[in-house]
Amino acid sequence: MQVVVPFAATEPKTRLADVLTPPERSAFARAMLADVLTAVVEAGHEPTVLATAPLDPATLDLEADVRDAVAVAVDERPLTEAVNARLPGRGDGGDDGDDGTDIDPVAVVMADLALTTAGALEALFAVAADVAVVPGRGGGTNALVVRHPAFRVDYHGASYLDHCEIARDVGASLETVDSFRLGTDVDEPADLVEVLIHGRETDRAPARLREFGFELERTDGRVTVARLEESSPE
Amino acid sequence: MQVVVPFAATEPKTRLADVLTPPERSAFARAMLADVLTAVVEAGHEPTVLATAPLDPATLDLEADVRDAVAVAVDERPLTEAVNARLPGRGDGGDDGDDGTDIDPVAVVMADLALTTAGALEALFAVAADVAVVPGRGGGTNALVVRHPAFRVDYHGASYLDHCEIARDVGASLETVDSFRLGTDVDEPADLVEVLIHGRETDRAPARLREFGFELERTDGRVTVARLEESSPE
Repeated sequence: MQVVVPFAATEPKTRLADVLTPPERSAFARAMLADVLTAVVEAGHEPTVLATAPLDPATLDLEADVRDAVAVAVDERPLTEAVNARLPGRGDGGDDGDDGTDIDPVAVVMADLALTTAGALEALFAVAADVAVVPGRGGGTNALVVRHPAFRVDYHGASYLDHCEIARDVGASLETVDSFRLGTDVDEPADLVEVLIHGRETDRAPARLREFGFELERTDGRVTVARLEESSPE
Repeated sequence: MQVVVPFAATEPKTRLADVLTPPERSAFARAMLADVLTAVVEAGHEPTVLATAPLDPATLDLEADVRDAVAVAVDERPLTEAVNARLPGRGDGGDDGDDGTDIDPVAVVMADLALTTAGALEALFAVAADVAVVPGRGGGTNALVVRHPAFRVDYHGASYLDHCEIARDVGASLETVDSFRLGTDVDEPADLVEVLIHGRETDRAPARLREFGFELERTDGRVTVARLEESSPE
């Protein structure tokens, strides 16, 4: 199985601009990427970072064995096109999947799934359907595995529902995978709390947030994050 | 296994006040409750609604076989006390769990888990740890199964982290269960989109929302819900 991890290498995580400076956003995005890549390798695969700009794996905070397993492919096109160019069956258009047995499946795992674990990925990778999808909040597609030669992604808008429809249209079976960990993409300030609650000791993303001065604030309702005054962006 | 479904029978879902009138909130809360109860019965159990006020199951939109399987217990105390009174080992304080084999486990499943399915519950109920917890967004506890006589709940504040700590303190093993469906509690207007995206044909909660005039609005970012002008609360 090929595992592709799309990564916006320039100006990542703009929706966190209210709480993180541009260098912090970049460092945090790279920390999440490193956590995701580590989980992919722990799950037994060699990930390819599909980056919008050149990226040297040696500059990521990775264990040596993980770093050695990571490849980088640069593709400046928008996400949908860049991913579709890596899916099975590209170029043979309209294959009906009957000969799908010799297709190497392709998994696409977003780089901002900071709660990803090897176990959650293994459960996703084990699904036998032609297309396995993990929805995120708000109808996004956080991860998928494609085993069907005619399936194509469309990340524009409500991609989870679109992907269900595209699978139907090409006659591919689809299974929705139920995972809070993979279903949590970290886009907005409110998402940071999940990183601090569910991140593990060895994870880089929660360590970065703590370095930046974030900590959990436990009030009566849902937990929120607070940032120490002196560490906030100016 | 006993399955307890706590339900705020009066003034439920106040955080939806901006988008639903009081009668609508009540109807929507009861629709979610009916969906949860149906899933519990499909998973092979007979749920007890732990209600803050009397509730007649005959007034819920339930299939006859589900209605016959549902019991109601009224307990006006706050959630934490009402649930603790139903957990295993109450009254014998400090049992170390070594004789846990003759304890009937108790599951607590919140009534606003509109995306609950029998399959998601079966996965939770199958976990063998002394305490199995499903966290919700923001550190809440959406569902748990207790097999240890000394474990007690505390729903105040960041209950997921508290429950991890309480399990440690009483020497109970704890497993966190990874489920987007059970991890999604429907509290706030932004949560309604999940009900419309992931609700199934036969579910009552999405049907109610559609009756109220809600539909998915698919823009470029995450999907949101929109309500038809003429159907909005005044």
